[in-house]
Amino acid sequence: MSVLPEAIARLQDELSKLPGIGPRSAERLALHVVQTEPASIRRLAEALNTAREKVHLCGICGALTEATPCPICASTSRDGSIVCVVERAVDILSLEKAGNFRGRYHLLGGRLSPLNGVGPEDLRIVQLENRLSTEPIREIVLALATDVEGDATSHYLAKRLSPRGIRVTRIAHGLPAGTGLEFADELTLHRALEGRRELT
Amino acid sequence: MSVLPEAIARLQDELSKLPGIGPRSAERLALHVVQTEPASIRRLAEALNTAREKVHLCGICGALTEATPCPICASTSRDGSIVCVVERAVDILSLEKAGNFRGRYHLLGGRLSPLNGVGPEDLRIVQLENRLSTEPIREIVLALATDVEGDATSHYLAKRLSPRGIRVTRIAHGLPAGTGLEFADELTLHRALEGRRELT
Repeated sequence: MSVLPEAIARLQDELSKLPGIGPRSAERLALHVVQTEPASIRRLAEALNTAREKVHLCGICGALTEATPCPICASTSRDGSIVCVVERAVDILSLEKAGNFRGRYHLLGGRLSPLNGVGPEDLRIVQLENRLSTEPIREIVLALATDVEGDATSHYLAKRLSPRGIRVTRIAHGLPAGTGLEFADELTLHRALEGRRELT
Repeated sequence: MSVLPEAIARLQDELSKLPGIGPRSAERLALHVVQTEPASIRRLAEALNTAREKVHLCGICGALTEATPCPICASTSRDGSIVCVVERAVDILSLEKAGNFRGRYHLLGGRLSPLNGVGPEDLRIVQLENRLSTEPIREIVLALATDVEGDATSHYLAKRLSPRGIRVTRIAHGLPAGTGLEFADELTLHRALEGRRELT
């Protein structure tokens, strides 16, 4: 017989499915839950359901949003001539936090990965091309990961999109902010040197 | 304007109230939630509500339980003559996992802490004394923390309960299992020496 009451064991089981929550943390959280004020647990459960029901991907750019289209696609103050391409919906949030991009976004939904069976038809590339036809886009900024698959996907997109007469750029590679050379790996330094720019 | 859709921000807020979950983990979890299969989030929300509604403290011993009385108090195979006193309901689970205690339990609900305004009347001591009158208890095992307040509470209980003609014992202090002397602090070693026993 298990030591935990069944309702706690079931909650532990569900919690341990969340990322970064192992069986021990899940047990600790479950035991916290059954000893907390009931109203606050009801609020948490409701927030879970509400978030999952209300939030979806924007039909145009793919951002996580409650509105259709999302506030970024709907905004008239954003620059519609420049579109930033990202792998995941959460990448849009990261870039928005950085706060200096005033264009719009396009979610790719992943990157090319032949080993995992992900080809161009599995990504939202056709949707991007459709946007090129209907929106006044002049520049595509690729903001994909800086690993091998991110590189391959960026080059594939640049090759496929460049005949459309638009500028295709990629965000810079180099030293992260606030660190010294001694913390950077060789590839990062290699790319930081390659990407050097004139001080004006 | 916040970058996160409001439903995600609210979920992040609720999640960050859980112990050990900071704002960053809460955001990560919230973003995971809105991108996961809806049915599994409904199951999690339901498990939260069910656990909080069904689980309560046993009216006799104070263990976390779905049944009244709890399976330990209800069991006829447990030894009713020995009762182990613990601070928190989760301590009962820890001892049950150890698996070698066959008596019953009593939740104290904390320990004496004059600085925090916790006196004897704030703990479930009267309830314990009532059990001494109605149950065939011959031994009380104190399993409180091994810090100053735990020591003080243990001594207080021993003094208050000993006139009742029962044995009052305390669980052993000493080296934890699986470690060497070099990892033990001085007080632990001091107590391990004090508590030495003859090898038979």
